[in-house]
Amino acid sequence: MKIVIAPDSFKENLSSMEVANEIEAGLRRVWPKARCVKVPMADGGEGTVQSLVDATGGELIQCEVTAPMGERIAAAYGMLGGGKTAVMEMAAASGLPLVPRERRNPLLATSFGTGEMLLHALRRGAREIIIGIGGSATNDCGAGMAQALGVRFIDADGRAISESLGGGMLERVARIDMAGLAPEVRQATIQVACDVTNPLCGPKGASHVYGKQKGATPEMIETLDRNLAHLAAVMGRDLGVEVAERPGAGAAGGMGAGLMAFAGATLKRGVELVAGVTKLDSRMKGAALAITGEGRVDFQTAFGKTPSGVAMAARRHGVPVVAIGGGLADDAGGVFGHGIDGLESATPNAMDLDVAIRKSRQYLQDAAERVARLIDIGRRMARKAAAAGPRQPARKPAAAASAKRRAPVRPQARTRKPSQPVKTPSK
Amino acid sequence: MKIVIAPDSFKENLSSMEVANEIEAGLRRVWPKARCVKVPMADGGEGTVQSLVDATGGELIQCEVTAPMGERIAAAYGMLGGGKTAVMEMAAASGLPLVPRERRNPLLATSFGTGEMLLHALRRGAREIIIGIGGSATNDCGAGMAQALGVRFIDADGRAISESLGGGMLERVARIDMAGLAPEVRQATIQVACDVTNPLCGPKGASHVYGKQKGATPEMIETLDRNLAHLAAVMGRDLGVEVAERPGAGAAGGMGAGLMAFAGATLKRGVELVAGVTKLDSRMKGAALAITGEGRVDFQTAFGKTPSGVAMAARRHGVPVVAIGGGLADDAGGVFGHGIDGLESATPNAMDLDVAIRKSRQYLQDAAERVARLIDIGRRMARKAAAAGPRQPARKPAAAASAKRRAPVRPQARTRKPSQPVKTPSK
Repeated sequence: MKIVIAPDSFKENLSSMEVANEIEAGLRRVWPKARCVKVPMADGGEGTVQSLVDATGGELIQCEVTAPMGERIAAAYGMLGGGKTAVMEMAAASGLPLVPRERRNPLLATSFGTGEMLLHALRRGAREIIIGIGGSATNDCGAGMAQALGVRFIDADGRAISESLGGGMLERVARIDMAGLAPEVRQATIQVACDVTNPLCGPKGASHVYGKQKGATPEMIETLDRNLAHLAAVMGRDLGVEVAERPGAGAAGGMGAGLMAFAGATLKRGVELVAGVTKLDSRMKGAALAITGEGRVDFQTAFGKTPSGVAMAARRHGVPVVAIGGGLADDAGGVFGHGIDGLESATPNAMDLDVAIRKSRQYLQDAAERVARLIDIGRRMARKAAAAGPRQPARKPAAAASAKRRAPVRPQARTRKPSQPVKTPSK
Repeated sequence: MKIVIAPDSFKENLSSMEVANEIEAGLRRVWPKARCVKVPMADGGEGTVQSLVDATGGELIQCEVTAPMGERIAAAYGMLGGGKTAVMEMAAASGLPLVPRERRNPLLATSFGTGEMLLHALRRGAREIIIGIGGSATNDCGAGMAQALGVRFIDADGRAISESLGGGMLERVARIDMAGLAPEVRQATIQVACDVTNPLCGPKGASHVYGKQKGATPEMIETLDRNLAHLAAVMGRDLGVEVAERPGAGAAGGMGAGLMAFAGATLKRGVELVAGVTKLDSRMKGAALAITGEGRVDFQTAFGKTPSGVAMAARRHGVPVVAIGGGLADDAGGVFGHGIDGLESATPNAMDLDVAIRKSRQYLQDAAERVARLIDIGRRMARKAAAAGPRQPARKPAAAASAKRRAPVRPQARTRKPSQPVKTPSK
């Protein structure tokens, strides 16, 4: 029996390979001979790099980049097995957690470091880049990144702006000069893992929806939104591409728009990109069962998160899918009917979250065992029903049917006569 | 598809009928046409009376009795449907919770009220009594109860002791006069739900093992133990029965011994008695699945608790058993291999226990739905495997085998039983 085990990571706790290993261990308690195919998955967010490095036998690469507020920091990305595809998370170079709360300022924060990281991977031989853009500290439309890639931003006086651009400085851009763009960028295929559909500007744009969490005041948000619109107009004129209204343009402070315009990137759902890298679809072939999972399963799980991607692939091959959550939200049942056939919670009892996290490996194994045992009950029920043959209506006591009924179909399970003394553990 | 739903109550939260109702509701989300047979269960402990009243369409009867420290209180027992069998819990008349902590004193506490309650039921027509004896405040070997039933305890001066006997007064008993025993007691069948096996006296006896939790000091425990031995000797001589060493004699402060000696009672495992009343065994006939449950499933669940009794009955009919716990202890997996085939936790996430209890109805429904969906996955897998026919090793193209493959008369069951015809069971 082939079983595909394709979970997400459990955020801040277990990598997706670790989750897969524990699920496998639990399944093996019931199905020791099952062929378990482990496919570490992700949805483009936190954990994506590690999952894909694990999935492909790749490696983590360190590079030095510029953090959002200008410091030099070490960032890591993944070079996948084969060395032609790099996977990175923008947050590693330009993430909000890199900036202490009191210093957060999207007027100044720059995505320059993300550009450096991209270039590092390209110069190391990557011909394909997959980049997740969640959790950024920036609101600069990717202008900082573009600078790192060689794009020059010219001010009204005709001078190239030398500082790393932040969201508050975009109004100074009068012209964009793409001549210096690193040739590796043009030669590469850059795909952006992006699950949001916000446009660049306006009430649903980057600044209004995500500015506050990056430290922007209401006044700053107005400035940021205006500046994005200004840069988009210059980009449209000088680059000949209109990206501001495209779905996802407003992701990560306009990084969606910037990657499309400056780097020719395409945006896709994170889980689809990951499923492509992990060859999830072909691995589903011939599977009897797929198990996925994430730290917390809720109704949103069915829409764009890892289990939904696993469900899509499984569905194409008619494979049933069980999702094991570290926990299940009260609305988790909503995923039934959206491609998830079964659900199980790893957390088996009322307890503090930190206990649940501390014991998550044991609990995952136990949950996988429970799943396997319940499925086995169903298998036995079906076989028994099949062995019993077509049901005979009770009012039709045909000779053949009653003869069949009298003959035991299978040996009786172990019986314990009620009169037998039973050992009690002493209390 | 017939499903037997036979859970225990969730202590201090839901009655077993309430638990069964929620499980049924959850199963029906998946199997709307299932025939659900609800059998409220119990193990002889708290909740047993309510469960059996619910199971048989009986009623609760109020009576006034003497509490352990002498006050008059109202106690309730169950008269089951039919009016011939009463079910009671000793704790209702002589329970530890009836005595405030600072007044607990097993030297004085009497089981007189339990005798009154027994007599009340017998005089109301009960010919069979099932009594659970957990949680008593007493250590009187059932002497108080015996007094209420008409037994006279004579002191060394030849005078009947008029006070209700407590564990500290048993040394005064020189002779026992059974002449006044209410005739209803002799005519009745009294069965005691008792899951402990302690003897009456000694280091594993009633006083040493359970005395402390009833408020006894070390000195009091010595006195109590000595007094029990004294009374047992008198009982042996005057009643002609030796009960002190019988398993369970030491239950409930010697109530096990007292009920055997004074009332001719027999001791049985609680869940077996309850299963007898609910006709659990016959209800299992033809079931495809049994679901049981209790507030918290742990390793002990497999030994004498309600799910173990359900598992025994199910096994006799070859019915798989799933236990749904309000929560699962870390060692709950130990029940596998002891008659429980599947496990599920109602609590789906890390949370405070009071939240889990407050939402337990919703969570039970959700858990039952998860169980049904996982079982359904198994049923689908088995049917699919059966439809695909017996697996043929690719390297062994025997003529017969390939001919068989070419002309399948019927779909085949799993490879293990290739000759059995398969029929898809309707839900």
